[in-house]
Amino acid sequence: MIQQLTIIGVGLIGGSLARALKQVGYCKTVVGCGRSEAQLQKAVELGVIDRYCTDIAEAVQGADVVLLAVPLGAMASCFKAMQGHLKAEVVITDAGSAKGSVVAAANAAFDQLPPGFVPGHPIAGTERSGVEASFAELYRGRRVIITPLASSSVKAVNSVRQMWQQAGALVEEMTVKHHDEVLAATSHLPHVLAYGLVDTLVSMDESEEIFRFAAGGFRDFTRIASSDPVVWRDICLANQAALLAVLERYQLDLEKLTQQVRDADGDALGTVFIRAKSARDRFIEQLEK
Amino acid sequence: MIQQLTIIGVGLIGGSLARALKQVGYCKTVVGCGRSEAQLQKAVELGVIDRYCTDIAEAVQGADVVLLAVPLGAMASCFKAMQGHLKAEVVITDAGSAKGSVVAAANAAFDQLPPGFVPGHPIAGTERSGVEASFAELYRGRRVIITPLASSSVKAVNSVRQMWQQAGALVEEMTVKHHDEVLAATSHLPHVLAYGLVDTLVSMDESEEIFRFAAGGFRDFTRIASSDPVVWRDICLANQAALLAVLERYQLDLEKLTQQVRDADGDALGTVFIRAKSARDRFIEQLEK
Repeated sequence: MIQQLTIIGVGLIGGSLARALKQVGYCKTVVGCGRSEAQLQKAVELGVIDRYCTDIAEAVQGADVVLLAVPLGAMASCFKAMQGHLKAEVVITDAGSAKGSVVAAANAAFDQLPPGFVPGHPIAGTERSGVEASFAELYRGRRVIITPLASSSVKAVNSVRQMWQQAGALVEEMTVKHHDEVLAATSHLPHVLAYGLVDTLVSMDESEEIFRFAAGGFRDFTRIASSDPVVWRDICLANQAALLAVLERYQLDLEKLTQQVRDADGDALGTVFIRAKSARDRFIEQLEK
Repeated sequence: MIQQLTIIGVGLIGGSLARALKQVGYCKTVVGCGRSEAQLQKAVELGVIDRYCTDIAEAVQGADVVLLAVPLGAMASCFKAMQGHLKAEVVITDAGSAKGSVVAAANAAFDQLPPGFVPGHPIAGTERSGVEASFAELYRGRRVIITPLASSSVKAVNSVRQMWQQAGALVEEMTVKHHDEVLAATSHLPHVLAYGLVDTLVSMDESEEIFRFAAGGFRDFTRIASSDPVVWRDICLANQAALLAVLERYQLDLEKLTQQVRDADGDALGTVFIRAKSARDRFIEQLEK
């Protein structure tokens, strides 16, 4: 049981964790911290947090666990602001979609990485954002990847693991580098492609009509293009190397597909489509198990 | 009211129209035609069609309306097979996702295009296929584009319009060329991108793990990659010119986005993402109206 959990960034991700832990009684007090007092006030009204303050140094005082659930670009300043105000035994984790940049930000803020620091990443979310979008079930049955560092204490790793498990998640461990490569492929690349597609269509002459005749397939395909632009801009910058590698790989493959369309090479196109469908159907089968 | 509707290709699209028209009592007899007798037998058992035969010439005999709901690559042989066996006043339409190639196939089969021929395209579907996947509500509130030709009679255009309206659809008219450009952008391009993405990930070393850690965003983004590969291969070939144009345009835009990631140009990335999100949110708002 956590006596005091301080959540920096009370939006969909932070708010949903707070709701989940309160629901199972795993957390006594949740202190919220953020830039917008109106949002924090709303979080109190919704019962997501117990109290708040907008100053990080103050918010982390007395905290047993600190969760950073802010865009990746804000991590560095958050670490700096909390440095010197933490309890000795504090556990610190985050929900950033890239892990290398978070570790770099922590390294820059602390003389020595606190043994309580265990980076993490819940593989869950919706395209909506803000505390109003948060709900206690967000993490139920979903995976959370934690990436313990050489400096992380076993006790802190166990605390972070248990916290996410209490929220209903399946926790797995991975190295920082491996996490960033896997997520670049499975999440960051699709977001760039979806934003890119919508933007390409917007710039076309018939864009109004294009959107008018779009069907369910298009709606699903572009759902992630309704995600928070600031969050995703930061992810692209934070996971630059791994994202670039998969982007370049995808472009080469797309150039091949385009050439197959140009050549009217039905056999080659059919082979790719059949292979992709079979992989995707297998993936869904596993997901539903 | 249609006395006899002959549906060539009793799958998701054809089967759903049959169910819808039977439900509202707009069609007396539905005759199914296809290559697989087992599938046709199943369609009879499900009550989707009243009877069937596997020979097109026989199936269209006595039909007041003929709907071709086969992959685009099969249209030409269907038109040829029905030629000479149609009633004088017959209405012929289709559900192909590209219209230019269907008109070309009809032109090749008939000495003169029948005045009853009105190409069409219901903008509806799911990633599943086969008559088992069909349901009467598929077209409710969805758009159907019809592309009347210079040779089409007003009577036939009205018949096709009314048939889809009876199934609950909103019918709109467009030229063949315009239809093919709009659909290339809004439907054909996303399918190629989704198939391509899944195939790129499959070929990566960590592909098992990539799929394992994929979340809801990935599932939605790749849903259309579970569509029928033969149907989509045919669409790529049938709508080659318009698809190539948007593919090439998308690639240029994606190259720009990649360069922005390479340059760590957060402002440029943020601008694209904000513009895309705002367009996509607007689109969803309109869709829900």
